[in-house]
Amino acid sequence: MRAEIEEQPQALRATLGALLPRTGEIAALGRDTRHVLFIARGTSDNAAVYGSYLVQVRTGRLATLASPSVATAYRSRLDLSGVLAVALSQSGRTEEIVETQAWAADCGARTLAITNGAGSPLAEAAEVALVTEAGVERAVPATKTFTTALAALAVLGIALAAGSAGAEGAEPLDAGELRSVPGEIERLLAAPNDLEPIIDGLAGVGGAVVSGRGYAYSAALEFALKLKEACYLHAMGLSFADLLHGPIAVVDGRTPAIIMAADSGPTLDGAVALAGRVTQAGATAYGIGGGTALAAACAYALPGPRLPEWLAPIGLITGGQLLTEALARRLGINPDTPRGLSKVTQTS
Amino acid sequence: MRAEIEEQPQALRATLGALLPRTGEIAALGRDTRHVLFIARGTSDNAAVYGSYLVQVRTGRLATLASPSVATAYRSRLDLSGVLAVALSQSGRTEEIVETQAWAADCGARTLAITNGAGSPLAEAAEVALVTEAGVERAVPATKTFTTALAALAVLGIALAAGSAGAEGAEPLDAGELRSVPGEIERLLAAPNDLEPIIDGLAGVGGAVVSGRGYAYSAALEFALKLKEACYLHAMGLSFADLLHGPIAVVDGRTPAIIMAADSGPTLDGAVALAGRVTQAGATAYGIGGGTALAAACAYALPGPRLPEWLAPIGLITGGQLLTEALARRLGINPDTPRGLSKVTQTS
Repeated sequence: MRAEIEEQPQALRATLGALLPRTGEIAALGRDTRHVLFIARGTSDNAAVYGSYLVQVRTGRLATLASPSVATAYRSRLDLSGVLAVALSQSGRTEEIVETQAWAADCGARTLAITNGAGSPLAEAAEVALVTEAGVERAVPATKTFTTALAALAVLGIALAAGSAGAEGAEPLDAGELRSVPGEIERLLAAPNDLEPIIDGLAGVGGAVVSGRGYAYSAALEFALKLKEACYLHAMGLSFADLLHGPIAVVDGRTPAIIMAADSGPTLDGAVALAGRVTQAGATAYGIGGGTALAAACAYALPGPRLPEWLAPIGLITGGQLLTEALARRLGINPDTPRGLSKVTQTS
Repeated sequence: MRAEIEEQPQALRATLGALLPRTGEIAALGRDTRHVLFIARGTSDNAAVYGSYLVQVRTGRLATLASPSVATAYRSRLDLSGVLAVALSQSGRTEEIVETQAWAADCGARTLAITNGAGSPLAEAAEVALVTEAGVERAVPATKTFTTALAALAVLGIALAAGSAGAEGAEPLDAGELRSVPGEIERLLAAPNDLEPIIDGLAGVGGAVVSGRGYAYSAALEFALKLKEACYLHAMGLSFADLLHGPIAVVDGRTPAIIMAADSGPTLDGAVALAGRVTQAGATAYGIGGGTALAAACAYALPGPRLPEWLAPIGLITGGQLLTEALARRLGINPDTPRGLSKVTQTS
């Protein structure tokens, strides 16, 4: 896992090199669509959450997540004209996702696949396939396939925003900012950040809350999933708003909260306020990102990436990956091969 | 909380009496819509999950959940023509939901509100307001406002299915089956089911998994939320498929799994298989519903409602409510006033 975390800048460079030249093709596919429907599970679902914010905030389209069982278990037939179905699967071989993509096409949707599996059934069946260049991923907890999927989604966002130029809610996204991401992750990985205070805080607890909102919500969901997969920690990934609608009750002195935020953007104030609220509830608040404001409100914080908000999740998860790997080692778990999981999950 | 659990048959009867005569009005509102977008948080979000399956499986429309921050934090403008926005809020006064409903209308959506708050800002602003007749709910954990919201969603499903008769994927729903629900909940509440084996199993643990799929997923999410709110238990509500894509790693001898399922339907086999899988992982599997097949695969199971799958969640949660209330008492918590929560949650 550690080696694959380190490979991310290279994997991201290769992925962007392959995909950024294809924005015209993507824009053409999306031209007559008004709604993006993401089809995914697990880590890919967390990537889809990032995509849903990017598409909605920057391309003027509604974007939501599909319920695959509507297709696979209930075999319901819907009118999906005007819908761009974006299916994500690391392997491209999870049957449920392949089947749901085929269902979407049958129902009238245009289809685009994002996968690390070149030549996989998912890639072969899609009208457009964006194949990420993460290389072989051996550790069960996904790292570089997650961040390269985010990069592919950023390319999708650039293409759809360009294709709907002039539409309300759509403004161009800067490909140059996206190209700066691999270098920024390199810098984060090389920076001598001390993980120990957070590892110490998480090593003795049974549960934790990981929270983010807007774009950063995807990184929070993914970090929570990593903590469950590789550290067997009951980590709940929640948006701030969902946390306050009930689950906040579980937060106490034995349940630390980790808050993830970009260094700027309209959800940063809420992140800082949440740090204060969980501290008041007796919990320890840790931060990843959120600049000096979030760091000041937390017991301890890791610096986040120096990236604009729309790209921050690709760098925010770096801290989460490093923490997961180090915490698993501390707990005596080999993070590469957690119990109960295999690399390709088959669900139907 | 206990008294309000008992009031549900009466609250459901009153709600159905008020809302079933209004299907024509609802069908007219939904006539030219192809997509239902739910706007909700917390318990209402769990109700919306039920609505999303019902709408997709029985009315031929895509149905998904909105991300309110797209409206409230990012102030993005989307094209929502052809969308029926269904906003749910128990009080009708959560600003975030009121604001997101107004945003949806501005973006071209038709609007329908489901709320227990007659005369509330949410009800007043919607084109059609379905006001539930749950009466005053005093306990912080919602019970009768949840099940009456499900009943309102069932009325919505009946109206939309009738309004799209003849369309692919749409077949009529039987209002008579819905009218039988209050009596069935009465029967469940009167049945002398022994909760103790499950209470014993949950009293000593820090975390649990609550799983369901399809229609029953909503009941699993809601039971998990109740356990967090009133018992401070790290309860993860997950669909079977999401559970297998990573979180299954947390399941062990100290993490029981509760599986909720209707007595029939295409997801029942998966529920039974999941009980076997978590048992194999060393965890104790408990069931709510799922008939004799699920009971046989679990260490202990509560019988579920004798209702068709599309209505089962309204009765499946009854067992979850009774277990939550009893577990809170066992743990020395007053379930009516859990820490960290108030009756109307304000998020923006």
